[in-house]
Amino acid sequence: MTSNGVEIAITIPSSEVAVHHRVCMPPEKTNLQKLRHWLSEIFFPDDPLHKFKNQTWINKFVIGLQYVFPIFQWGPNYSFALLRSDFISGLTIASLAIPQGISYAKLANLPPITGLYSSFVPPLVYSVLGSSKHLGVGPASIASLVMGTMLSEEVSFANEPKLYLQLAFTATFFAGVFQASLGVFRLGFIIDFLSKATLVGFMAGAAVIVSLQQLKALLGIVHFTSKMQIVPVLTSIFKHIDEWSWQTIVMGVCFLGLLLFTRHISIRNPRLFWISAACPLASVVLSTLLVFLLKSKLGGGIRTIGQLPKGLNPPSSKMLFFNGPFLAVAIKTGIVTGILSLTEGIAVGRTFAALQNYQVDGNKEMMAIGFMNMAGSCCSCYVTTGSFSRSAVNYNAGAKTLASNVVMAATVLITLLFLMPLFQYTPNVILAAIIVTAVIGLIDFQAAIRLWIVDKLDFAACLASFLGVLFISVPVGLAIAVGVSVFKILLHVTRPKTLVLGNISGTQIYHDITRYKEAFRVPSFLILAVEAPFYFANATYLQERILRWVQEEEERIQEVNGANLKCIILDMTAVTAIDTSGIDMVCELRKALEKRSLKLVLINPVSSVMEKLQHSKILEGFGLEGLYLTVGEAVAEISSSWKPKP
Amino acid sequence: MTSNGVEIAITIPSSEVAVHHRVCMPPEKTNLQKLRHWLSEIFFPDDPLHKFKNQTWINKFVIGLQYVFPIFQWGPNYSFALLRSDFISGLTIASLAIPQGISYAKLANLPPITGLYSSFVPPLVYSVLGSSKHLGVGPASIASLVMGTMLSEEVSFANEPKLYLQLAFTATFFAGVFQASLGVFRLGFIIDFLSKATLVGFMAGAAVIVSLQQLKALLGIVHFTSKMQIVPVLTSIFKHIDEWSWQTIVMGVCFLGLLLFTRHISIRNPRLFWISAACPLASVVLSTLLVFLLKSKLGGGIRTIGQLPKGLNPPSSKMLFFNGPFLAVAIKTGIVTGILSLTEGIAVGRTFAALQNYQVDGNKEMMAIGFMNMAGSCCSCYVTTGSFSRSAVNYNAGAKTLASNVVMAATVLITLLFLMPLFQYTPNVILAAIIVTAVIGLIDFQAAIRLWIVDKLDFAACLASFLGVLFISVPVGLAIAVGVSVFKILLHVTRPKTLVLGNISGTQIYHDITRYKEAFRVPSFLILAVEAPFYFANATYLQERILRWVQEEEERIQEVNGANLKCIILDMTAVTAIDTSGIDMVCELRKALEKRSLKLVLINPVSSVMEKLQHSKILEGFGLEGLYLTVGEAVAEISSSWKPKP
Repeated sequence: MTSNGVEIAITIPSSEVAVHHRVCMPPEKTNLQKLRHWLSEIFFPDDPLHKFKNQTWINKFVIGLQYVFPIFQWGPNYSFALLRSDFISGLTIASLAIPQGISYAKLANLPPITGLYSSFVPPLVYSVLGSSKHLGVGPASIASLVMGTMLSEEVSFANEPKLYLQLAFTATFFAGVFQASLGVFRLGFIIDFLSKATLVGFMAGAAVIVSLQQLKALLGIVHFTSKMQIVPVLTSIFKHIDEWSWQTIVMGVCFLGLLLFTRHISIRNPRLFWISAACPLASVVLSTLLVFLLKSKLGGGIRTIGQLPKGLNPPSSKMLFFNGPFLAVAIKTGIVTGILSLTEGIAVGRTFAALQNYQVDGNKEMMAIGFMNMAGSCCSCYVTTGSFSRSAVNYNAGAKTLASNVVMAATVLITLLFLMPLFQYTPNVILAAIIVTAVIGLIDFQAAIRLWIVDKLDFAACLASFLGVLFISVPVGLAIAVGVSVFKILLHVTRPKTLVLGNISGTQIYHDITRYKEAFRVPSFLILAVEAPFYFANATYLQERILRWVQEEEERIQEVNGANLKCIILDMTAVTAIDTSGIDMVCELRKALEKRSLKLVLINPVSSVMEKLQHSKILEGFGLEGLYLTVGEAVAEISSSWKPKP
Repeated sequence: MTSNGVEIAITIPSSEVAVHHRVCMPPEKTNLQKLRHWLSEIFFPDDPLHKFKNQTWINKFVIGLQYVFPIFQWGPNYSFALLRSDFISGLTIASLAIPQGISYAKLANLPPITGLYSSFVPPLVYSVLGSSKHLGVGPASIASLVMGTMLSEEVSFANEPKLYLQLAFTATFFAGVFQASLGVFRLGFIIDFLSKATLVGFMAGAAVIVSLQQLKALLGIVHFTSKMQIVPVLTSIFKHIDEWSWQTIVMGVCFLGLLLFTRHISIRNPRLFWISAACPLASVVLSTLLVFLLKSKLGGGIRTIGQLPKGLNPPSSKMLFFNGPFLAVAIKTGIVTGILSLTEGIAVGRTFAALQNYQVDGNKEMMAIGFMNMAGSCCSCYVTTGSFSRSAVNYNAGAKTLASNVVMAATVLITLLFLMPLFQYTPNVILAAIIVTAVIGLIDFQAAIRLWIVDKLDFAACLASFLGVLFISVPVGLAIAVGVSVFKILLHVTRPKTLVLGNISGTQIYHDITRYKEAFRVPSFLILAVEAPFYFANATYLQERILRWVQEEEERIQEVNGANLKCIILDMTAVTAIDTSGIDMVCELRKALEKRSLKLVLINPVSSVMEKLQHSKILEGFGLEGLYLTVGEAVAEISSSWKPKP
């Protein structure tokens, strides 16, 4: 044994086939070095200090400032040309943001004005802290829905409006704290556990739930269930057929048709994005005018928003509470809405960054979104994030920097200060139509079909989260979805694939004999490959399965009267890790095979496996001839050792 | 594209290096075939119907009968020679089983006689159903302790003895149902999730807890806490120093010393196993005699078991309950003790089967142990399993078949019928000493040290379960241990290792350049290998990490003025699975690299990955030259394509 590796055998120069490369140990590291490397790969995979290398102190300070406040990065180079693009896109998203803000606030059972407040302060905060160029910030449908559901289970806004508001702002504060701390502690990878497959199901489920809720306003029902599940909602709708209002239904169907039609146009032709972007505001204006002009004729048939207060966001920091019986529900709601809005924000940011080929730093974004929500919770805003619809409109309208968010905020400011009385006659039904149009895009049939085609288990995860949201509740649906995804990983480890390899004649390539027809079994050898780490969860299975392969091979040999089995070669290339149970398994497997007079040979253990095999002293049991770098070398050398020596 | 594979390029016969083997698709299967294969690998990895193949109907019936009642397998060949061995070993384990039974019943807060009942019926049932030859069946320390803890939290035996007994028998029944159904539904792999590492910690923690509990009897304390955690127990001991009884302490220390000394002898010399096996009974006899003779002098200083009823197991099926407020705790206790005793029973069975080179069918064993407990719960027995100490003694005493269990049961029967009055003066302190001696062997320092040396994360799991049991509670400790083990698997997937490969000159071998000093980078290529499946949990990380490798390679090339980077080769040999997020990642990675004018080539995707890549149509984007079977072929062909054509 050399200091650096386990010398397995001596190279035989005369024989061409029997060249034997030794299997090396990885370079030795102390435990501390290993721990450091391990922690840095977990928490700093993006090497965030890379750009600070070889810089002067002043430069380091500037880079640090630009890291914390990305506005210092793009602000100094800001030009009039950029402003023109940003101004147009800012106005465009404002025309979408105002009706959406009001609608989403209603989805969260909050006063409509809160939605506008939330479209004013958070975009300003984000434009200073955010690193995406195209994120359109404001309330989002899923987070609004979840907040509404979770809080309404505890407190009714109708009965205790002040407590409900307090709860909402406190939950928003905790959402921000949670989001920011994920970023600060570099735990951003947690949101990766919401896989795309589960999100497809979750979003679709949430969209159905949200749309069903809108039937209250679309049908003009007064007495509606406060539950969110599909069964009580449908029951409630058909129990109150007498409350259905034909005026509301006519108006709702017309405007919903208009909105869906314009949405369809914009999807078909992305250059006409402005049609679907402007349509909500146009519908609001039109329907408000209609109701105002016909109010004497309609009577109370169509319900409207009613009077809204004028003025800027009132401070709400005194409404936050940090003790009392409702603290737990506020924290829980904060964490669930926080992780949902974070997932949406990060995913949207990454999508548009990829389109324009710039990088968005996940952990940095989490801090930006987190601080935005913490600031928001002190200014009467509820949970906000980078919403998909708004960001798409922003991107299509040609936004170049986050200044478009500032323009949007300014427009909202003007609305808050001067235009609020105009919304008095805006009918609720139009807000419902806007929400339905927005969330219907979340139902992605094609993605679900693709999941079914590509990966049945991913489809199962998707379906589980869809049904979980629909029939149980949003957080439970989410938990089921994560559970199914994790279960999938565990199942892959618990029941790994084992393959029999054969030689592709004329080469040194050994491959799966069921897949490669040109690969043939090597007489006297059984060459197996395992496609998973050797872990406690599969050690028993693998041992049994390998012994079964051996037994089947022996039965096969008996049938065809082939050469006796002498050696089992275990290709460990795809065995990416091993734990103590796995090591014991290898040990026991070797003993069991020895009792049948079979030799066990390991091929190419990866470095971490090699290290552990070495530490556990198991390699000594294998002797000098138990480890080879390639299957070809093992077969050549072992079979030449069987030949009678001259 | 052929029907069976993706034809990637045409073999170039004239050039020796540019032989190009196509990457095959795996043989096509319908979804139903895939599902069948998948389910059979999950639930029937041992192919239990194998031996029924090609048999007549009568033979099939006989094999089936032997499968359900293994006694029909060994019974017909039973001989006098076997009986002699089994008789001796049966008597030996009986001498251990009687004092252990009484002691463990006290550990479960049950009347001592229950321990003897549990050493009579279950061994008889197991000898008919069990497939291990050496399992010594009876109560076990861990399961007794856990049952005692979990039930005492709800009901006190001192106050409500009848309810406590009902609870214990009902929990035993549910333990049996749970165990048997794991076997029937072939979910045996669930116990694999209790990894050896966590069990080492769990056992050590439980042994400490059990030993501390024995201080009550060893010190003669009357008022003792009913809690199990280390802190309240230690507090309770030192709060009641006035109750310590010197006579008890002297007797306890002497006999504990004797028991530990004989245990030490038997460990040093396994042929002297009978010394440690007979010592508990000898100590009981000796101490009982001592107390009986000195009872006038000792006064009440030493507490004894007291009168025990004579007679056989009374039926207890009427004491089981299936409704009421205590059902939940009975089910919970049943499941926890069921899984613990199952783990011990299966592990012990496998250990001794491996020593004698016969197979124990896990799922079959679960059914045997499960039915044994269900039967036991109707005959005043509590949870039993194959205990380690008893089985070891059984094996060493030369047991050949399960008939030794029958002999043991017969001995217990005689004890129950005639010898019970003899135990009246047996001191409690001797039972405590027997328990301490038995559980002290569960603390396996060497295993813990080995975990630390081989795998730090396994050691962490071990420590977590140890501390969890010690400071919180047994079920929580168990849950923590499973959680840590699962977290370890997830972490491995979330942050997989990526390697840069280089060519070992003169060969077609490509290997990790940090590990193999003779491996050199190939100019213009960056060859990467990933040691994990591409999953939702690592898709983002892997994309960022691979792009960082590319960036670092470009910086390195700039420094050394090397050849421009042109091609990224991704060796997928160790990428054992892919999901939809992983596929999207590969797609996006290719786009990102294309924007930098870099080509992405995939090497040797395993069959399941290949299938999914094909279904997702992503292969079309890679074109004909994006897939190779080996790194060597890819490098040869791609670099030859760059040469100006003649």
